[in-house]
Amino acid sequence: MSLSISELQEIHDFASKLSRRAGHYLRGDRARSQTQILPTKEKLNSVDLVTAVDEGVEKLIRDAISTKFPDHAFIGEESYSAGEEKRFLLKDGPTWIVDPIDGTVNMIHMFPMTAISIGFCINSIPTVGVVFAPFLGGHGTLYSAINHPEGGAWMSEYGATGPSTNLPTASPPPPLPKDAPKGCLFFGEWGKDRRDSPESNLNKKSTNFINMATEIGGRGGKGGMVHGIRSLGSSTMDMVFVAAGQGDIMFEAGCWEWDVCAAQAILLQTGGIVVDSNPPPNISDDDPIPMANLGGRRRVFYVLYLAIRACSIDEDGRTPRTQQEALVRAVWKRTERFDYERPM
Amino acid sequence: MSLSISELQEIHDFASKLSRRAGHYLRGDRARSQTQILPTKEKLNSVDLVTAVDEGVEKLIRDAISTKFPDHAFIGEESYSAGEEKRFLLKDGPTWIVDPIDGTVNMIHMFPMTAISIGFCINSIPTVGVVFAPFLGGHGTLYSAINHPEGGAWMSEYGATGPSTNLPTASPPPPLPKDAPKGCLFFGEWGKDRRDSPESNLNKKSTNFINMATEIGGRGGKGGMVHGIRSLGSSTMDMVFVAAGQGDIMFEAGCWEWDVCAAQAILLQTGGIVVDSNPPPNISDDDPIPMANLGGRRRVFYVLYLAIRACSIDEDGRTPRTQQEALVRAVWKRTERFDYERPM
Repeated sequence: MSLSISELQEIHDFASKLSRRAGHYLRGDRARSQTQILPTKEKLNSVDLVTAVDEGVEKLIRDAISTKFPDHAFIGEESYSAGEEKRFLLKDGPTWIVDPIDGTVNMIHMFPMTAISIGFCINSIPTVGVVFAPFLGGHGTLYSAINHPEGGAWMSEYGATGPSTNLPTASPPPPLPKDAPKGCLFFGEWGKDRRDSPESNLNKKSTNFINMATEIGGRGGKGGMVHGIRSLGSSTMDMVFVAAGQGDIMFEAGCWEWDVCAAQAILLQTGGIVVDSNPPPNISDDDPIPMANLGGRRRVFYVLYLAIRACSIDEDGRTPRTQQEALVRAVWKRTERFDYERPM
Repeated sequence: MSLSISELQEIHDFASKLSRRAGHYLRGDRARSQTQILPTKEKLNSVDLVTAVDEGVEKLIRDAISTKFPDHAFIGEESYSAGEEKRFLLKDGPTWIVDPIDGTVNMIHMFPMTAISIGFCINSIPTVGVVFAPFLGGHGTLYSAINHPEGGAWMSEYGATGPSTNLPTASPPPPLPKDAPKGCLFFGEWGKDRRDSPESNLNKKSTNFINMATEIGGRGGKGGMVHGIRSLGSSTMDMVFVAAGQGDIMFEAGCWEWDVCAAQAILLQTGGIVVDSNPPPNISDDDPIPMANLGGRRRVFYVLYLAIRACSIDEDGRTPRTQQEALVRAVWKRTERFDYERPM
């Protein structure tokens, strides 16, 4: 099944408007909350939070989609989490994958790295992506794309009627740094698993951050001397900054399809790649690197993502893909293996 | 010496306009750089960078100030760094303390957490502060304050002629979380010192982050279960988010007066506090906590800052200062001592 570019454009424009409507709802709610602490419910633990607003935004989005596209499937974080059925639901038909609020903790604290993420897949491929950060700038910031040869990717910072900028922000995007990860901007999160044990995910993440940051030659050769490590508290925003070319590497373990589907559509359209943040077993330096797929029977990997930004051919004549794959291998060599399991 | 509120208002309005002019200059430069990599010079190492733009922005600001206020002193990061004289220069007279670009690495990568920081001191007290983030939102985001009983603090996201919001964003600001640091949003940076040794600043910072993030009871009782750890790559932006009430704790070791002077004026006006991130030797739980001062002979501490946001009286009747000081002690118990030395 495929849709024409004009059908995709209609879906893109609908999703963009819908994300702004949801953002308006959120901004109103935040205004109401400014004299009180927002009531929250704990999911996994005291840092895994959901507010009534998360559920309200998801309902707003789901209702609008089912009215406009009654035949399309819908996967949303909150209805998924609340449901009994934990098997993965992505099929080949037109499917919306929605995270009503990524960065709920940030929103509670009024830190503006919060995103409404609306993705649309066909054949399990992220094809339209809309990520709206309603608190980033006075008008909010909308990142969006149609992943299609005749599509495009855009950033809009001046409201629905204002001008937008093509993505990636630099055109053409510069080559990756010659000795990458040295010189790269690296995005990663501490996450919600806070258990204390030597083999914990928290300790592995910290090992990764130190490896990436340490000078070349340090950490038994694992020192990566990246330009910087950024933790924003939203894996959607991490990926969208890499998609826009406002960062180089996004490494995440423990996120979900709704965290990345929309951002992935933008990243793919700009020329970035996404692979598993755990290397496939026994992969050699000459083997091609499989790209990460979303869900369904085609899904090779669980919830582990490593994204690299778009780039141009470099001084040595290396193609973008050659540079990107070399950087993937360089990151794999400096990072720990994770074993996040999808609950069944 | 003191200035009237109308004189301070004039200084505030002048600094705000000047920061937007500098931001316009930066945005223009970034537009020019979008097809090439910005040329940089290394200072300490390959992640401590300065661009010709940093120096150009500092000159623009210095020239404007010396024309308008020829009798005022001026301390700027780039001229300080380039000079032979490394003793600290802050005197009691009217003094401007300017960081032309905080977050240079972010700017090179086009990640929007970059700030122009213009502070104004009298009697070594941060009295007017303007922090402009020119890439945050389409119009940039301006945080500013006059630290004075008749002053105020504001955030402006809609350009020079648009409306502004009073700070802190929540009014009144909510109490700190009851079991803080549990439930807090914590801002800290990995920094530019990337040497690999067990006692390195890099390893200490990582220890702090893990302690703050781990579940209560973990890490030998040091687990703080904060809501999240955020690293933005700009200590100015970290402090300004705490000043605005968009975060709870900012912990930095290894930053300079120009990184914090303007943000500190905003923080003080909103009701936040700043102390040394190293506890004073032999301080007991009952001793009052000295507030951090900027530079000069009055300066007790070096380049180590711990900031806590404004808050209101809590359910148990604890005053804001009592809650803030309790949180300072709780952070001190979970963090390592640093020994950054000011070069002489």
